This record gives sequence, structure tokens and C-alpha cells, in this order.
Amino acid sequence: MPEVRPGDDLPAMVAALAAGDGVVPGDVLVVAHKVVSKAEGRVVALAAVAADARARALAAVTGKDPALCALILSESRRIVRRRGATLICETHHGFVCANAGIDTSNAPPGTAILLPRDPDASARRLQAAVAARVGGRVGVVVTDTHGRAFRRGLVNIAVGVAGIEPVLDRRGETDREGRVLVATEQALADELAAASGLLMPKAGGTPVVVVSGLATRPSPGGAGTLVREPAHDLFRGG
Amino acid sequence: MPEVRPGDDLPAMVAALAAGDGVVPGDVLVVAHKVVSKAEGRVVALAAVAADARARALAAVTGKDPALCALILSESRRIVRRRGATLICETHHGFVCANAGIDTSNAPPGTAILLPRDPDASARRLQAAVAARVGGRVGVVVTDTHGRAFRRGLVNIAVGVAGIEPVLDRRGETDREGRVLVATEQALADELAAASGLLMPKAGGTPVVVVSGLATRPSPGGAGTLVREPAHDLFRGG
Repeated sequence: MPEVRPGDDLPAMVAALAAGDGVVPGDVLVVAHKVVSKAEGRVVALAAVAADARARALAAVTGKDPALCALILSESRRIVRRRGATLICETHHGFVCANAGIDTSNAPPGTAILLPRDPDASARRLQAAVAARVGGRVGVVVTDTHGRAFRRGLVNIAVGVAGIEPVLDRRGETDREGRVLVATEQALADELAAASGLLMPKAGGTPVVVVSGLATRPSPGGAGTLVREPAHDLFRGG
Repeated sequence: MPEVRPGDDLPAMVAALAAGDGVVPGDVLVVAHKVVSKAEGRVVALAAVAADARARALAAVTGKDPALCALILSESRRIVRRRGATLICETHHGFVCANAGIDTSNAPPGTAILLPRDPDASARRLQAAVAARVGGRVGVVVTDTHGRAFRRGLVNIAVGVAGIEPVLDRRGETDREGRVLVATEQALADELAAASGLLMPKAGGTPVVVVSGLATRPSPGGAGTLVREPAHDLFRGG
């Protein structure tokens, strides 16, 4: 994949590559959000960002760049936790992650990359372009790299999903002893995202991973399905 | 793999199957903890468990079986959260998960399956047996299926690791722009565990998945490396 620039038609680029690489209906494409964000113009020059009083106050307590703090605040519903320079935010999408998903690595110098405004819509555009090109349903999972509560280290999670069921509901299925399964929801799109992390070097350069041979079901649901509603969450706090 | 019973020599069984299936040095075996727990005798008949007053009190507020509550309490350092029937525990290993990792699905009727006492030691025994049989280093990841704060659905995570580095430290590496990477810790063993979930039906029957072609580094560290210390955790609470 060539370097992606603002305004590039990423769905067409990915569809052409997919067809050339032998992607077939049933495959799932896992796409790092950074190329999506770049194509969608979600790359911001920090020098062009005005930091208001709230951003400057956040910069003072975190030691972060005031312009970066202004972006974090504008991308967040709220700050969920702060300790030192660590800021865990709830984004407008509902994701709970560091710095509202804003990242400066693999970004041009002096810029920051934001999450797509609507990553499920981004996934649907990619899905439609690839499906049309290969002649049948494919899945698309757009990923970001997040930390987790309770556990060290980062994993890729799904921020956008199209063409496949993001969460498999196993209600009514039985185990090998004939008992109804208790753990009934499988976070398929997050499993796909995490698996892609094995093949996407953190230094960049591999924005798309293809998963073949996996049985998936079509679904209109997106990655929003994977967001636990705050009222059902035991850890976010009020 | 035949049905595993208490006292079975699981490392020898897995090593024989691995050799027969063409496992080679460098491969990683991802093993569902249930077969490990079964072989290690961590299957408990609920009728044989005495519920003390604390277990009975927990049963009263959760609606769970008092014997199951006694097991959950004995496997936990503490209860981290409770809402209705949902119990999030911190296990003696440090894992934060529902019901201290105790499960009754795919368990013989009237029994519950506990996590291995020391899943890293279990992983090391499997690792040593398979490595000896195939003539070189392999990796072993022992998994459990956990929920997550903030997100719906379950994913497999690593509860035991041997032979590979569980968390990759990227400090000092640079991105394609030459900037030092900020997100420096990759939870490799959790990525492997999550990937295995794509191939392990929740109804059971596929306890081992082999990952080939992945570059890993040897390490004495286990899954304990993946446990965030409570003092560094922003969500567990005191």
C-alpha cells in the first residue's frame, strides 16, 4: 500500500489491492485506522490548534502539549481517569482509551492523528468497495491499539465494523455436556483486531491484514455493538 | 485430542499430538485452560463443597449456588465489583475476571472447573514436553475467556505463558517518521490468546490451536507479566 494522503480514495485503493491479492467473498479485511484517518483528513497540525483555558489547565497538570490537550478535549465526552500524564478518555464514539485515541506516532512531524469521526461508516465504505470488486460479501474491521484496565500491554480492538456480526450471541447453544452456555457473547471483531496485531508491526507499514477461512454471519451492526453502555459498566464510574 | 481426565499426563499427550501434527520449533501452542485444569484435578464436585456463612451470604445476594460462592471466595483475593449476579473478582494470580475464573460450562454435571493453581507453571510443563519432542523452542500460551471493562463480549486472554516473551517492549524503536514510539508495550500473549478464540468453538472440542510463522523471542517471563499491579491500575479501586 502506498503512503495514504488526505483526500485519497482509500476504499478504491484497498479494493484494488484486495482484488490483486486474491481476496474472495467471505474474507475479512482488518484495517489499521491510521490509513483511514489519513485518507479522511483527520490529521491535524498542532500549530493550527488554539488551546483554550481548559486545554492549558490540562496541559499544566499532565505536561502534555496544550494543543494536543485541546484536541483530546474536543474528541472526548469526558475524562474518565487521570494520573500524571495518563489521560483515559471516553470518546464521542463511546470508546474508553488513552488520549481519546489521538496518536502522534506514524504521523507527520508536528501533527496528530485523530480517530475517524464515524469509524463504522468508514468500515461500511471500505466494505462496499471491496465487496463490489470481489463480487460478494467481505468483512471489514477498522482497528485501533488500546490499553486495558487490569492488564499490561496494548492490543488492537475494533473501532469500526461492517459486513460481519461484531459480537456473536451464543444464547441457546449448548456445550458438549448438553448444558446451555453461560458465557454467551463472543467479541468476534475484537478477536480479529487482536489477531491482526500479530501481523501489523507497531512501527507501521502493514495497514491491512486479510483473514481467510473464517465463518462469519452478515449483520448491519457495527463496532458500536462492542461498546458497553456506561450504565452497564462496573468500572467507568459516574 | 481425547477427553482429558484428572491425572492425565497432558504435557505428554499434547507433545505427542504436536509431533504428529507437524509442530516445529518456533511454533506457538495456544491451549484452553480447561484441559489443563481437568488434567491437574481442578474439577470440583459442588456437592462436596461446604458453604460457610460468608459463602451463604454471597449466595443470598447473587442468587448463585452457595457451594459455587464458596469456591469463588476461596479462589479470590477479593471481590472487586458486584452487581446482581455479576461478581468481578481478583484471583490469587491477580486476574480480574468474573467468578474468579470458575466455570461450569464444559464441566461434568454437578462440577465446576477452577483455573490452574499456577498457570505459568502449567505452561512451562507443556512447553518443556513439546520442546523436547519437536527438538527446539516452542511457545505455550494457556488461555481463559474473560469479559472486559468498557466493552461487550468475551475474548480469550493469556493466563499462562512459557517459552516466549509475553509483552514486547518496543522502547527505543522508531516509527516510519523516525520518531520514538510512544505506545511501547505490545501484549503479544494476549493477542495470541484472542486469535485462538477465532478457532476454538465456545462449545468446546478444540483445546489447542497452533500458530506458525510468528517471530517470537525466548523469555523466562510468564503471564504474570501481563497483570497490571493494582497500584498502577486506574480502575480496580482500593
